[in-house]
Amino acid sequence: MAQHYDFLVLGGGSGGLAAAKQASAHGARTALVEPNPLGGTCVNVGCVPKKVMWNAAEIAESLEDAPGYGFGVEGTSFDWGSLRAARAAYVERLNGIHRRNLEVAEVEHIQGKGRFLEPGKVAVNGDTVTADHILIATGGRPRIPDIPGAEHGITSDGFFELTEQPGRVAIIGSGYIAVELAGVLNALGTEVTMLLRREHLLGSFDSLVRESLMDAMSTAGVNFLTGVHMDSVERTAGGYLLSSQDGQQSGAFDQVIWAVGREASTADLGLETVGVETGPEGIVPVDALQNTNVSGIYAVGDVTGRTPLTPVAIAAGRRLADRLFGGRPEARMDYEDVPSVVFSHPPIGTVGLTEEEVEERYGQGGYQCHTTTFKDMYYAPLERKVPSAMKVLTVGPHEKLVGIHVIGRGADEMIQGFAVALKAGGTLQDLRNTVPIHPTASEELVLIG
Amino acid sequence: MAQHYDFLVLGGGSGGLAAAKQASAHGARTALVEPNPLGGTCVNVGCVPKKVMWNAAEIAESLEDAPGYGFGVEGTSFDWGSLRAARAAYVERLNGIHRRNLEVAEVEHIQGKGRFLEPGKVAVNGDTVTADHILIATGGRPRIPDIPGAEHGITSDGFFELTEQPGRVAIIGSGYIAVELAGVLNALGTEVTMLLRREHLLGSFDSLVRESLMDAMSTAGVNFLTGVHMDSVERTAGGYLLSSQDGQQSGAFDQVIWAVGREASTADLGLETVGVETGPEGIVPVDALQNTNVSGIYAVGDVTGRTPLTPVAIAAGRRLADRLFGGRPEARMDYEDVPSVVFSHPPIGTVGLTEEEVEERYGQGGYQCHTTTFKDMYYAPLERKVPSAMKVLTVGPHEKLVGIHVIGRGADEMIQGFAVALKAGGTLQDLRNTVPIHPTASEELVLIG
Repeated sequence: MAQHYDFLVLGGGSGGLAAAKQASAHGARTALVEPNPLGGTCVNVGCVPKKVMWNAAEIAESLEDAPGYGFGVEGTSFDWGSLRAARAAYVERLNGIHRRNLEVAEVEHIQGKGRFLEPGKVAVNGDTVTADHILIATGGRPRIPDIPGAEHGITSDGFFELTEQPGRVAIIGSGYIAVELAGVLNALGTEVTMLLRREHLLGSFDSLVRESLMDAMSTAGVNFLTGVHMDSVERTAGGYLLSSQDGQQSGAFDQVIWAVGREASTADLGLETVGVETGPEGIVPVDALQNTNVSGIYAVGDVTGRTPLTPVAIAAGRRLADRLFGGRPEARMDYEDVPSVVFSHPPIGTVGLTEEEVEERYGQGGYQCHTTTFKDMYYAPLERKVPSAMKVLTVGPHEKLVGIHVIGRGADEMIQGFAVALKAGGTLQDLRNTVPIHPTASEELVLIG
Repeated sequence: MAQHYDFLVLGGGSGGLAAAKQASAHGARTALVEPNPLGGTCVNVGCVPKKVMWNAAEIAESLEDAPGYGFGVEGTSFDWGSLRAARAAYVERLNGIHRRNLEVAEVEHIQGKGRFLEPGKVAVNGDTVTADHILIATGGRPRIPDIPGAEHGITSDGFFELTEQPGRVAIIGSGYIAVELAGVLNALGTEVTMLLRREHLLGSFDSLVRESLMDAMSTAGVNFLTGVHMDSVERTAGGYLLSSQDGQQSGAFDQVIWAVGREASTADLGLETVGVETGPEGIVPVDALQNTNVSGIYAVGDVTGRTPLTPVAIAAGRRLADRLFGGRPEARMDYEDVPSVVFSHPPIGTVGLTEEEVEERYGQGGYQCHTTTFKDMYYAPLERKVPSAMKVLTVGPHEKLVGIHVIGRGADEMIQGFAVALKAGGTLQDLRNTVPIHPTASEELVLIG
């Protein structure tokens, strides 16, 4: 006999967990289906282990900077395996917390992989489960290109499995995952070469941070090969050789990391059986209320291809549960002005529109752009100098804030508050009315313009 | 023959420099009188060298944390003298920048000490200088208590002169300078004992950050002696001994640091000659427009005893120049909701009212208080755990933000943006409407409550 639920969630990542708990809190009988440790990409192979590695890289930089601040450090070494073990222990702790949180929330956790049989009916572990409402929250996974020898490369998933620090790494890609992995490896002493299809990093970001980042990474020792269209990967005795379509070779490398985008994890869900449409990279398109094209089937998070960030998936999942079970028929996720941080070296914080987007929307001359660049005081006694850069974009006679972009030391914790100001409709005058805090980097944002 | 100016500024610190340059930019013939290197307390014995020391202490903590992140670090040492030299070189560079900035701004820099002869007339270096408007911006200096043996102690000024790291230090005081010096010295390996008159640190701060800081400092190894009313300091062969009025002794210490408040630098200005009133600790009281009680004589910055912070002095100086010479008769500094950071370990960021102030103003039950405490992910692989704590205070049906208080890793760069949101009249809903940035500490502020 089929178990029946009010709400069945496929996928135990950020969005699925949040939706399931919220639905249960509203009184819905809820189950969550997930074959792997709970927490999804973020906890297992995303934000969390990435941030641990970024913290390690920050410490590596502190060790490098220590002599400038009067410290003698006789010999430093780095044990990749010991950090990996500490990181894995932390991730397992979080997996357990998520397990217990589901119990406390009275969400049934079915360990297995769900597959649609018909609308309202899903097969899991040979059993059949039925539900009035079914949420697809199966997330995504890194893409591997279809070229000869691609299997020699790993992805960000494989990066987190590495048991030894590679000496020479090629990273193919220019997105935030590519720059984060490159920054971490470079800071930890790996020789890093980034291969980009175009001329620059972080294509969708504002030009100021894009260019500042590339300068900073170059200065820090990352090699860049631009205009590279990959043709093949070859394994040789000396390491992996990469060939591009124009016949250039690069290498040898000990590891090749594909960071060329992600695709939705929808291949084995039986979506075609129930008629759920999918789009490019397997994504499940949804409307503003997270509805798929099939009634009673919804999607949130990375699987939708929309703003693939943990807090976005969480908010979308909660709003959906509020709508379905919380008596809030209009509840929806607001995808406008979502702030984000890239844990690059130096970090980037950004919210709102890029200058390119502002210009497209308001026309040249239809907006104001204020920028500043400076060297953080931290670098005063050091040879190593990493510039900071900031841009504030405003529109209209009151100079309403529409975009804030920061790269530099401290940007990671700086941008959230400014994102509140922007989201609340703040103006340049609101920045100027606020007394700067000296000496910080953040004060430069209220002194700008 | 007396040189005559439109505007004469006594004091080349943050407030005086800003006022002089702004006045000159408005076309006023301006001179600035300062006997010491330009930049005042902030540049020479305040924010700047303090921040350098805080950065050094942060690096010391990174060295301590490095093994938890997989680093082997052998034989670390710390050379106080080398850091001091690097710091001094940086301060001198800033002194020079301020000198050149005055030249560029066409402000005449008179190196000397000014003393009022009569209204509109000041003696400097044996000459007489006259001006239509005279600004007192002479700042302040640390207070030394009037007890036997007080001369054995140094102040924050003396701290920056130390050529060797002291092994055992007593810090008397509980304000932000006391906790900043204590945090730096403790992190760098000095044995620190803080002697407080009352039971807690940072008397004017919100209780949450006050208490969290004291816990964190205790855990980090700072010793606290509370309820201590100092009676005398005695020099012995083994070091300095401190005696309190109830007969308790503590010590011996290698250095005794007085951090018991500051007084205005007004003693030798001849204020009594021209009838400028002074208040407690020698401060020059001013009205909302920075007017003293004598027409044509103004004061800004620490000398006024109002919110003694560099950016406040700068803003007050500029507004005064705007008012006197810029055709803006209503220009004034807004002293409400001035954010600030204490560079303690961990740092504190704060803006608006404390809970104690909110309760006094709005009554018990007349406000809402939202708090959160957590361990920053940075500490996940470490034995050393430093908790973070946050408090958001709101009033009214729309939960208008009236106070935001943060202690913990990253608070130093976090608070400025939230200060903009508060200053602009933001609400708790504005925090909640903003998507959190994961994984950061700052996201906890928009998830609060």
